[in-house]
Amino acid sequence: MPQNQENKKQLVNHLSLDCVVFGFHENQLKVLLLRMKKTREWALPGGFVYSDESMEVAASRVLQERTGLGSIFLKQFHIFSDPRRSDKNPAVSDVIEFGQNSPEQSFFDQRFITVGFYALVEYSKVQPQPDVLSDHCDWVSLTDVGHLMMDHRQILDKALETLRQQLLFQPIGYNLLPEKFTMPELQKLYETILGCELDRRNFMRKMRSYNILDKLDEVKSGGAHKAPSLYRFNVGNYTKALEEGLNGRW
Amino acid sequence: MPQNQENKKQLVNHLSLDCVVFGFHENQLKVLLLRMKKTREWALPGGFVYSDESMEVAASRVLQERTGLGSIFLKQFHIFSDPRRSDKNPAVSDVIEFGQNSPEQSFFDQRFITVGFYALVEYSKVQPQPDVLSDHCDWVSLTDVGHLMMDHRQILDKALETLRQQLLFQPIGYNLLPEKFTMPELQKLYETILGCELDRRNFMRKMRSYNILDKLDEVKSGGAHKAPSLYRFNVGNYTKALEEGLNGRW
Repeated sequence: MPQNQENKKQLVNHLSLDCVVFGFHENQLKVLLLRMKKTREWALPGGFVYSDESMEVAASRVLQERTGLGSIFLKQFHIFSDPRRSDKNPAVSDVIEFGQNSPEQSFFDQRFITVGFYALVEYSKVQPQPDVLSDHCDWVSLTDVGHLMMDHRQILDKALETLRQQLLFQPIGYNLLPEKFTMPELQKLYETILGCELDRRNFMRKMRSYNILDKLDEVKSGGAHKAPSLYRFNVGNYTKALEEGLNGRW
Repeated sequence: MPQNQENKKQLVNHLSLDCVVFGFHENQLKVLLLRMKKTREWALPGGFVYSDESMEVAASRVLQERTGLGSIFLKQFHIFSDPRRSDKNPAVSDVIEFGQNSPEQSFFDQRFITVGFYALVEYSKVQPQPDVLSDHCDWVSLTDVGHLMMDHRQILDKALETLRQQLLFQPIGYNLLPEKFTMPELQKLYETILGCELDRRNFMRKMRSYNILDKLDEVKSGGAHKAPSLYRFNVGNYTKALEEGLNGRW
């Protein structure tokens, strides 16, 4: 809403942000979604920008409200500006009571251009919280995500495309996996993002060649099969690979 | 301006776009800049968005006006939204005559959030055209770019950073080099983007391993030294490498 009760700061017209929050749990890539109160449609967590905020600050604020996390790895990846994208906006007036000709109503009736952010978070640390327009906030496995509100499916797909591209030259996993993990768990993360199965030996060989993992003197216990070895990211090499690419400088 | 004389379409408040147009000429990476009439500051070509345009359509329109080119390889790379970035806007009223309390004046006085696009163009095809706020539009070698208006230097640097990252996993050059080029010319393009010198043999070995070049039965004539071989991009393999990354799929 343009005027916040506690806080008379003005929101910037026309601009919104939507966040694709990825978490990894039980060998599945999950995304944080909200269910809208009236339409029952699922939507990405999103929000608006105050006049004294950058988009990044606004996105951090929105995600803190939805997840309880203060510090999140967050990255803008695309701006969605199809002039017709807001036409598909579910009537917000069905959800919130506005006075006639209220500024709140006309704020929501605008064309919105939205900035997509993606976030990689540790699943277990998130405490999902619905916003005023929704009655439910929860993790949904990527394979179970169906229709989403407006162009949110397109925003989710673009975030995935960005992650996939990142896998071609940067390591991934540090913000998604627990501190210690097995090679099959890491492979499963890659497979879920890429949307296809990978050859086990090839994956292991390639991953080892990047020199970003430390093999621990521990195995994962509790499984039915032979206990697999545990690994941890070598933070120094991981950070270097983030900066210089997995295949080194030119 | 909010109202265009020929065309009464409304511009979207708060939103602008800025384009970093790269061209390669005489072994130098160049960027297209405008010189502002009053302040004499150099600036990136930019513009605003009509209510019926996406950001991409608006950026294409702006670049067609500045370069004469109808079809340009153009990619959004970042949104710049520091709430103070427009404070450094040179007084547009020094350049354009507004009526008192005119809507044009208040349009320019807003906070602007700008979307950065970068474009790779064939230098020789561009016919630089200044806009209403500028008296000069020209190519400037990257090494000669000094102070730029507002945060345009930051926008240029971020575009370069994006190109550098792209070099880690994607080929580059198809939109920048002439159809036939020598290995030293291709290496010079990489060196200019990376801002450092590369080892000649290492570069050649790495580039050949990507299988994106066809060596021609021709040499480049006219130089003082031994005539170097000419190459051409293998468009099929180049396109595949753009999609799958230089090091192949996972």
